[in-house]
Amino acid sequence: MSAELSRSTESGVSEVDLELARARAGLLRFCEPPSAALAMFVEQVGAVQAWRGILARRAPRAVLAATAARTQDVSAGDAVLRADADLATAAAVGARLTGPGDHEWPAAAFEAFEGALARGVRGACAPVALYVRGRSLAGLPRKGVTIVGSRASSAYGQRVAGEMAHTLVSGGLTVISGAAFGIDTAAHRGALHAERSGEPPTVAVLACGIDRAYPEANRALLDAIGSTGAVVSEYPPGTAPARHRFLVRNRVIAALGAGTVVVEAGRRSGTLSTAAAADQLGRLVMAVPGPVTSAMSVGCHLLLADRFAQLVTGPTDVLAALGRTPEADNQPAFPGTDPRHPTDGLDADSARVYDALPARETTTAADVVAESGLVGPRVLSALAILELHGLAERDGPRWRRVGKRPLAPGGNPG
Amino acid sequence: MSAELSRSTESGVSEVDLELARARAGLLRFCEPPSAALAMFVEQVGAVQAWRGILARRAPRAVLAATAARTQDVSAGDAVLRADADLATAAAVGARLTGPGDHEWPAAAFEAFEGALARGVRGACAPVALYVRGRSLAGLPRKGVTIVGSRASSAYGQRVAGEMAHTLVSGGLTVISGAAFGIDTAAHRGALHAERSGEPPTVAVLACGIDRAYPEANRALLDAIGSTGAVVSEYPPGTAPARHRFLVRNRVIAALGAGTVVVEAGRRSGTLSTAAAADQLGRLVMAVPGPVTSAMSVGCHLLLADRFAQLVTGPTDVLAALGRTPEADNQPAFPGTDPRHPTDGLDADSARVYDALPARETTTAADVVAESGLVGPRVLSALAILELHGLAERDGPRWRRVGKRPLAPGGNPG
Repeated sequence: MSAELSRSTESGVSEVDLELARARAGLLRFCEPPSAALAMFVEQVGAVQAWRGILARRAPRAVLAATAARTQDVSAGDAVLRADADLATAAAVGARLTGPGDHEWPAAAFEAFEGALARGVRGACAPVALYVRGRSLAGLPRKGVTIVGSRASSAYGQRVAGEMAHTLVSGGLTVISGAAFGIDTAAHRGALHAERSGEPPTVAVLACGIDRAYPEANRALLDAIGSTGAVVSEYPPGTAPARHRFLVRNRVIAALGAGTVVVEAGRRSGTLSTAAAADQLGRLVMAVPGPVTSAMSVGCHLLLADRFAQLVTGPTDVLAALGRTPEADNQPAFPGTDPRHPTDGLDADSARVYDALPARETTTAADVVAESGLVGPRVLSALAILELHGLAERDGPRWRRVGKRPLAPGGNPG
Repeated sequence: MSAELSRSTESGVSEVDLELARARAGLLRFCEPPSAALAMFVEQVGAVQAWRGILARRAPRAVLAATAARTQDVSAGDAVLRADADLATAAAVGARLTGPGDHEWPAAAFEAFEGALARGVRGACAPVALYVRGRSLAGLPRKGVTIVGSRASSAYGQRVAGEMAHTLVSGGLTVISGAAFGIDTAAHRGALHAERSGEPPTVAVLACGIDRAYPEANRALLDAIGSTGAVVSEYPPGTAPARHRFLVRNRVIAALGAGTVVVEAGRRSGTLSTAAAADQLGRLVMAVPGPVTSAMSVGCHLLLADRFAQLVTGPTDVLAALGRTPEADNQPAFPGTDPRHPTDGLDADSARVYDALPARETTTAADVVAESGLVGPRVLSALAILELHGLAERDGPRWRRVGKRPLAPGGNPG
């Protein structure tokens, strides 16, 4: 076996690099993800040793069990040849293999799996490696937002997904999705149409081999994503898409974003599994409402009704829910918003009640009535409006002002 | 004054009744609501003594202050004549005056104001009396649901409001609204078109005198409501609608329903004041989502995003949110729902995971994976789906089954 591992390589790739790449390719080839046992073994001994151990049948029993189905009739030599072939197939479509320790590996994105695994969630483990076509994943999940939804989407959902992706990417973020028809496609397209920033506009995570286009009709889209963003897969080249792989893949989609936005989902949409995975990983789950008359919004409304997801109506809400402001990331302002003047355009009552609220202490609504000279229900209404805008805060029966009202209400800069 | 108070009346009305009616009419005529001072005074001494006290200028200073503007140039005799004239005007349009102590008075609806007042919410007080055209309000708020929304509503909102009202009324409830254009009108109409049950289908609360139709174009609608349901007002006959009266009136609309549903509302819709009033009264606030592209749903989305309101997509959600089932009120089943079989139609994975959950204890997702034979993410997805349907409950990292799965999944009765 050492003969194979040390044979010479194409120019420019060190033997150490090749050995690591081959080990990763072999691990992906011979173990269907997710395998927490394999992930732990790799974390303990590294990919190269793990791979050698499996080939030599010297590995934890759970790892041998997880790889048995694919390795039992394969000699170590053939296994290595197969790993090399996978690397070659990947290279032929412009893909490389990346894993833990590489600069481009989104280590921060996958840290969350450790907690989920510790909580007893079997299958909640990071990929051992990823085939990547395109750019580095290093900025994720901090710079990423996952946008997913049904294949059977409405024109409404596609529009919302496309515009959301477009605006988020224009603001310097990366949109992660699954390249499926419908919402995924709209999100990827919206991202690709945005003006280029420093980050990859969009990342597509496949449930099949990196050399395959699924759905086939999205081949050109995937090529475009691979050229300006990134297409990734934890499956060895040639792997066919299968139902269980979509569900397994969804955990990677959820992990790569700081939060997951469900734009449309039917009552039993597979999209809900991405939402569940995001939740398990401690990622914020968001959902876009839609007409209650639309079957494509039923899943979103279930998520919202049970307060499993935060309601978002657009990119500004997504950023706010994630605790981001365009400023915080030093990005250009988002169209249609002016975060510098949150009280701009308040109605007269609300402005009057805002002014009646003390800046440093709490007060009762009755005192606000006295101070503002407005009758009780108008004050209550105004307080509710201020609260909705985050300009007043309730503390039991008492209220306090939040933030600072600018001097020129209603004014726009310039 | 005792001469006026004891003069004989039309046939069938006792002097005691007339004295009470006249006192109530006078109180409504000479004090613009809401006046917590007057409400408290009336609660302490009764309407008749309160009215006599005000006429004799022997009342708490706050009460005299609240009534000063309208009583200062009026003799006691003229005041009584004016009250009698109001009763006559009301009677001419088929309206009567009701108040605390009457069988038809919705005492339970107005109890909530006491708590709000105790919390320092000035203006949060029950009406001293109400003019009523039509049926008794005795079943409210238990049998009532308030449905409100913007005048500038969309066809979508009108459809949702109309269908919701229709279904709720078909199930034996009463829909309360404000007779404004848009959502209010759609709710009233939907209620009127429902099959008649024991309860009044709908109640309209006016911000003007009971003898006026506002908006004028809704005169026929108000007549229809007054004939099978009820039209009510706390304003003396002839009172013109005014902006502040709509806001004051909204507290009555909120009080008469067990919960308030906002179907559509713009960003600064007056409808939000009804939601705020409902919240102050401890009533459940519900909101219907809509397209994020619709300005008419912005207010609803604000309420939902801040978790100020519970998301509802239709009448079944409203009943569930209010803790009602059609059975609980011995009402006919609602169209399109079958509450007897909550797990009907579960997908195969979810059914399998449901069966894998122990009935009496909690378990980890990992154990469910082992038990169900499904991979982790499928189990997670199924658990999320079960949780959304209220069939599984999370307890930290552990899960438990909720309810009992019927033997024949997917089956409909008969």
